[in-house]
Amino acid sequence: MKIRKIPGGFTAAKGFKAASCEAGIKYQNRRDMALLFTDVPCAVAGTFTSNKVKAAPVLWDMDIVKSGKPARAVVVNTGIANAGTGAEGMRLCSETAKHTAQVLGISPDSVLVGSTGVIGPNVPLDRITAGVTAMAGLLSDSAEASTLASKAIMTTDTVNKEFAVAFDLPAASGDGTVTVHLGGMSKGSGMIHPNMCTMLGYLATDCAIAPELLQKALSAVIKDTFNMITVDGDTSTNDTLLLFSSGLAENKPVTEEDESYELFCAALYSVCRDLSMLMASDGEGATHLLEIRVFHADTKENARILARSVAGSSLVKAMIYGKDANCGRVLCALGYAGPEFDPANIVITMTGESGSVCFYKDGCVQVFNEDKALEILSEHDVHFDCDMNMGSEEATAWGCDLTYDYVKINGDYRT
Amino acid sequence: MKIRKIPGGFTAAKGFKAASCEAGIKYQNRRDMALLFTDVPCAVAGTFTSNKVKAAPVLWDMDIVKSGKPARAVVVNTGIANAGTGAEGMRLCSETAKHTAQVLGISPDSVLVGSTGVIGPNVPLDRITAGVTAMAGLLSDSAEASTLASKAIMTTDTVNKEFAVAFDLPAASGDGTVTVHLGGMSKGSGMIHPNMCTMLGYLATDCAIAPELLQKALSAVIKDTFNMITVDGDTSTNDTLLLFSSGLAENKPVTEEDESYELFCAALYSVCRDLSMLMASDGEGATHLLEIRVFHADTKENARILARSVAGSSLVKAMIYGKDANCGRVLCALGYAGPEFDPANIVITMTGESGSVCFYKDGCVQVFNEDKALEILSEHDVHFDCDMNMGSEEATAWGCDLTYDYVKINGDYRT
Repeated sequence: MKIRKIPGGFTAAKGFKAASCEAGIKYQNRRDMALLFTDVPCAVAGTFTSNKVKAAPVLWDMDIVKSGKPARAVVVNTGIANAGTGAEGMRLCSETAKHTAQVLGISPDSVLVGSTGVIGPNVPLDRITAGVTAMAGLLSDSAEASTLASKAIMTTDTVNKEFAVAFDLPAASGDGTVTVHLGGMSKGSGMIHPNMCTMLGYLATDCAIAPELLQKALSAVIKDTFNMITVDGDTSTNDTLLLFSSGLAENKPVTEEDESYELFCAALYSVCRDLSMLMASDGEGATHLLEIRVFHADTKENARILARSVAGSSLVKAMIYGKDANCGRVLCALGYAGPEFDPANIVITMTGESGSVCFYKDGCVQVFNEDKALEILSEHDVHFDCDMNMGSEEATAWGCDLTYDYVKINGDYRT
Repeated sequence: MKIRKIPGGFTAAKGFKAASCEAGIKYQNRRDMALLFTDVPCAVAGTFTSNKVKAAPVLWDMDIVKSGKPARAVVVNTGIANAGTGAEGMRLCSETAKHTAQVLGISPDSVLVGSTGVIGPNVPLDRITAGVTAMAGLLSDSAEASTLASKAIMTTDTVNKEFAVAFDLPAASGDGTVTVHLGGMSKGSGMIHPNMCTMLGYLATDCAIAPELLQKALSAVIKDTFNMITVDGDTSTNDTLLLFSSGLAENKPVTEEDESYELFCAALYSVCRDLSMLMASDGEGATHLLEIRVFHADTKENARILARSVAGSSLVKAMIYGKDANCGRVLCALGYAGPEFDPANIVITMTGESGSVCFYKDGCVQVFNEDKALEILSEHDVHFDCDMNMGSEEATAWGCDLTYDYVKINGDYRT
């Protein structure tokens, strides 16, 4: 197999370390800060929330990514988002970076920051700087350090999220191939909606690759991964996805869109898709993963819009939770998505491990086997295949069901 | 006062009758069909769902409204939506109209139809025609008949919805003024999202008005009323709003956009706004009415988009239910709505009967009085005022909170 799953996350590639600690920012008795560090100056690509209200850490990181300057570290906290904090919020980013730079002996403009939690005032800078000081002495390239860091950035997540892959590229020496690694972590459970990128995510690779291709690959891959998940339709103010490359794999540098670049993109897609699916599956209160595949669409973008519309429908999500095969709601959600189509030509099928049920074709909702439908809806992963019969494009969106617990979690989030 | 609220609904204006019955279509032991009738041939204006999948009754009614032919009756059933039913669904509309025409001695192409309920097959035509036969003998212009009809078209609604107003226009005789009436009913509780018009609604006036102005007034008014409410973001396949005019008020016919037309529009707005607010307030599982007012926006359309975004946010809705003043979520929902604005310039205030709390200004979420916020969130109606500080346009959107009961109702709708 060209792309091989391997254990680990952010530290799976050569040149990356992680640490975490209990800084007591809001949560008690759990790790709530992470420090990510690169052994060498790294190129960094990034994608950020499309929300007009961008949290201070987003603005801070956007500046660094845009400048093209090498990156060395990321400081992440949970509990409070440093959003809606104006000039004071920017000062907090600056102070955090300055302190981190001092402790680690690097430049302040090589330090990125990330925050997630409640939107509002009172970010405790003293606890954040104390956390950085404590973590600086704990940095490690072990898988355990990476896992603990991926747990430290969780908010309402119930599981930590990290994946890594390895693949082979031509060696820089010109003699055979070398193994290249790409891994990362992400968090996100609520305020999740596809509009780049609805979460915090940190990816690292040792692949030697031109910085502009690093950004190009990231921007392309998120369209079919992080931008295709939805939990609640709310696009966060803090969404940040960063991809670092250390170049330490000693591969022949990827400088054009050749086979090596394609393989790198496929590896990046693999990690991003797995993180995305796990985030959808771990949506706040979720008991089901919902996968919507739209195929034979006229354009790629229409396929994405249609799939996301179904994955985001409150009524579809509620029926999955209730195991009620009220499948006209899938048809309805395709209909209000926006793209034109002829309802007479599409076919909608629900599938699971235990079989499948076609519930719409020839312009009519079908009479289907209710027992079989209930059997499928009793599985954790529920799939809807929507054949548009219009062309050759396809897209897949991921979501989750809408449950009492989503309401409970978000009716009382601050306390 | 120019526009006076009066008791009644669809039959408040001269020339309109209503009837209802227990047809046993899906619900048992309750009225589930209504018949609306006009004493004279009426002009009819209509607006319909923007969903690409339009239920058969929507297609049927669109044809009649477009044809400009006079209308005489509407047959409405609840329980099953006659959507996703293809050619068979159209045949059911045709058979229903044909039977109704026979019973009432009118033309089949003057009979409109409306359905709401589960999307799917097995519409019981025999029960619908039996219902029409029974109702034909019960038609009445009483307020009670109107109220019973407004109850008969409910699905998950917990209250029936009807309003009426009276206002004065110059008399056709040229001598003084005459009193003109406008009233109507609507239903809708779930699958409610602003995209024309997310519900069934039937309005009637005795105002003599040119048919093109009748349609123009309706199309204009829905933009600030029915299109500004949201319950769950799902735009139905069956949304239909019809406005009939009998012309029996003996006013000087309204034939241009003069003062009389403005007054007619204001009366129409009044009835549509009251029906809209009641629909939002009666959203499935709702315990609060949520009113979002956006003002000092740069354009009217941006004001509408921003207000609807906040009203539709799952996280805002959940926090209202939980009485948790996590007000950064309102800021966040403005931010992902789409329109450009400078977060540093806006001011967001939450208000209720008991006072108000400013929680965002000068680019920062404010430290506010939590007790006061809890007091406001304990009221039924919660208002957010969003001052964009950009221009002079404003819009108001209405929604409701997201509750356990919404999930419960929609996790098990078919049974």
